[in-house]
Amino acid sequence: MHDLYPTRKGTEPDVRDRQDPVIYSRWSEDAPLTQEEYRSYEDKGFLFLPGLFKADELQILLDESKRLRTSKDALEDETLITEPNSGDVRSIFALHRQSAIMHRLASDERLAGLARFLLGDDVYIHQSRLNFKPGFRGKEFYWHSDFETWHAEDGMPRMRALSMSLLLTDNEPHNGPLMLMPGSHKRFVGTVGETPEDNYKSSLKVQETGTPDDESLTRLYDDFGLETPTGPAGSLLIFDCNTMHGSASNISPMARSNAFFVFNAVSNKLVAPFSAGTPRPEFVGARKHVDTVEVIERNAKPLAA
Amino acid sequence: MHDLYPTRKGTEPDVRDRQDPVIYSRWSEDAPLTQEEYRSYEDKGFLFLPGLFKADELQILLDESKRLRTSKDALEDETLITEPNSGDVRSIFALHRQSAIMHRLASDERLAGLARFLLGDDVYIHQSRLNFKPGFRGKEFYWHSDFETWHAEDGMPRMRALSMSLLLTDNEPHNGPLMLMPGSHKRFVGTVGETPEDNYKSSLKVQETGTPDDESLTRLYDDFGLETPTGPAGSLLIFDCNTMHGSASNISPMARSNAFFVFNAVSNKLVAPFSAGTPRPEFVGARKHVDTVEVIERNAKPLAA
Repeated sequence: MHDLYPTRKGTEPDVRDRQDPVIYSRWSEDAPLTQEEYRSYEDKGFLFLPGLFKADELQILLDESKRLRTSKDALEDETLITEPNSGDVRSIFALHRQSAIMHRLASDERLAGLARFLLGDDVYIHQSRLNFKPGFRGKEFYWHSDFETWHAEDGMPRMRALSMSLLLTDNEPHNGPLMLMPGSHKRFVGTVGETPEDNYKSSLKVQETGTPDDESLTRLYDDFGLETPTGPAGSLLIFDCNTMHGSASNISPMARSNAFFVFNAVSNKLVAPFSAGTPRPEFVGARKHVDTVEVIERNAKPLAA
Repeated sequence: MHDLYPTRKGTEPDVRDRQDPVIYSRWSEDAPLTQEEYRSYEDKGFLFLPGLFKADELQILLDESKRLRTSKDALEDETLITEPNSGDVRSIFALHRQSAIMHRLASDERLAGLARFLLGDDVYIHQSRLNFKPGFRGKEFYWHSDFETWHAEDGMPRMRALSMSLLLTDNEPHNGPLMLMPGSHKRFVGTVGETPEDNYKSSLKVQETGTPDDESLTRLYDDFGLETPTGPAGSLLIFDCNTMHGSASNISPMARSNAFFVFNAVSNKLVAPFSAGTPRPEFVGARKHVDTVEVIERNAKPLAA
């Protein structure tokens, strides 16, 4: 398959225009978002919907989140990521496969229905996880495009996937919220790969694999700036697979938690990795569990299990 | 000398009320700040004065900052802190002793004059530095009270000192600005010191010396919350020696720079450290260079050298 988005191939960053649409459906009055929201997502590569889930639904999700976190033994071993020192739970992967309530959440028309519309295709879940970013010692996540990794390491062919993060705690400017560069989804920043022996001329700094270089990031920042959506628990953040994003560390006492789902178009299923040997494990990039999500209408069946 | 603020002495945090005034002068119409500013500093333990220095003055300070940064050889060896990898300048200490312009800045009535009023005494400079917090890889600074360190390691007897940070770049919510807990200056959080052998019961986590524990921080946060003053270059942030503060990492491409001066009352000069052996070096806590700062009226002599 021809590689439209080469990355980790050379000693110089390779910046290209996006070769794929951002939204794969036309807007109409029946669309699951307003015309203004539609345009904003198209332009910025993300959309923040404050308070989309109400208090009673949120409580169900919080209870389920707590249950999962405290029943480690019931979880598939490798899907549980804990802190090296304390043993505290950081993430639980394959969330929708290990919790009926979280499966119901992913299938909700507000998530899967919207994903299906934006991607113009049936969708399946490429990855899902429950994140707990602790207070005091919450680590930063450096700038990256998810697609760069999914393409290079998982073999996702095209930009026809998106992430949805449902906030289970409030996002404040000071508790390490996601920062996104609006418009960056229209540019693909191929990164510098494993350092070849003659690379010493181009960089004195260690460049981690998949990490964009300072110059490309500076250009993105100058062209697009950055935005930090903040809002109450129950808000939904949707962002395109190629939107550049990251988060600073969180030293505030406020923890940050979210339920995270990556939807991919069924026409965009994984092939062989474009810049890696063996693909990553199933729980970070699905190859076997790729059932089409059946969208459930919000009012047809309540969120509760 | 009786130790009013014991810290690093035991295995449990020791939280006490402040034993000293916050402001040592009464407010009058001649005061160098408004009554509202006076009350706000008293209540919160900090005050942010946006745009206090104008464009022409700021340009002089930026030029001088650049000159100092690029003339490393002219600086006292130990006052220059560089990045381990790149050799980039992180901080230049003893700033007022190595730059006539920065000495003039510290002596300005907007700094030294205000410090003298707030501390109700003549003042000298306990420490000064020029900070460069780089973009992309700006490290976090964990929560701390400066006084805790100055008392324990430098032998500062009482809470009669304050810091002034003149912003040389814009402070944005996303480039790792200082976060402060308003009101925290009225409570002293003695920290847990070197871990004795029987400490295993009180904590499983490594507690760095001088770092407040999670429980005390959570209580401060619940009682006081936190604020993040942001504003343009040329703004001045003044904060009490005991105000709890810290900053998250800065992954944004925007660097952050400031000129930083700690003023201490001449009646509060250093004695032997309260919880350490040898005092820290002169450039972090002055013992020899303790001349009273002669305040220069803003219009008597322009900022330029």
